[in-house]
Amino acid sequence: MTECLFCRIVQGEIAADIVYQDESVIAFRDIQPQVPTHVLVVPRRHVAGYNDLTKDDDALLGSVGRAAAHVAQLEGIGSSGYRCVVNSGQDALQSVPHLHVHVLGGRPLSWPPG
Amino acid sequence: MTECLFCRIVQGEIAADIVYQDESVIAFRDIQPQVPTHVLVVPRRHVAGYNDLTKDDDALLGSVGRAAAHVAQLEGIGSSGYRCVVNSGQDALQSVPHLHVHVLGGRPLSWPPG
Repeated sequence: MTECLFCRIVQGEIAADIVYQDESVIAFRDIQPQVPTHVLVVPRRHVAGYNDLTKDDDALLGSVGRAAAHVAQLEGIGSSGYRCVVNSGQDALQSVPHLHVHVLGGRPLSWPPG
Repeated sequence: MTECLFCRIVQGEIAADIVYQDESVIAFRDIQPQVPTHVLVVPRRHVAGYNDLTKDDDALLGSVGRAAAHVAQLEGIGSSGYRCVVNSGQDALQSVPHLHVHVLGGRPLSWPPG
């Protein structure tokens, strides 16, 4: 049994508030939302993070990006605006070593982003 | 002549502090850096933003993501950590309507990201 939290959500072993899924990705609400809309878009296939990407992951990364935009539309923030964030490593506070895109919106976001 | 700022940088009409480029992307320092390392990764081909992505852009999005990770390595923040940020629309303060990934690092980043 995998110990990866997001792999376990993908496999249905751990519950999540899923807002969208397709053959490549699953999207669910962050359990510690920072903004009115805070969804994580996760590839079903395990990729640890940006440092581990290879050319073979290009299509997957495209699917994740399009899913993030689609989630924004579903959540009603596609027009008002949203921020997509990927954290890599300790300085960025990456908490789960399975690539995920934070989709954040529902209020004006400040700059810098952390 | 295009009026898109980043297309003009891609075409060499406007100078930028380029840190990496390949056949798909160009990466240059943000002129208003928010952290010690703040680089923008931009696809050479014009895509306005995440809301405009189609399946035809998957490979391009993959190239942009891998380039962001490569830039982090070049800049010496691949191991310490970095945050990749894409802003879409007004709430996220998207300033240039040409898809670009902010690569930020060189100090601990806080949460939430804006």
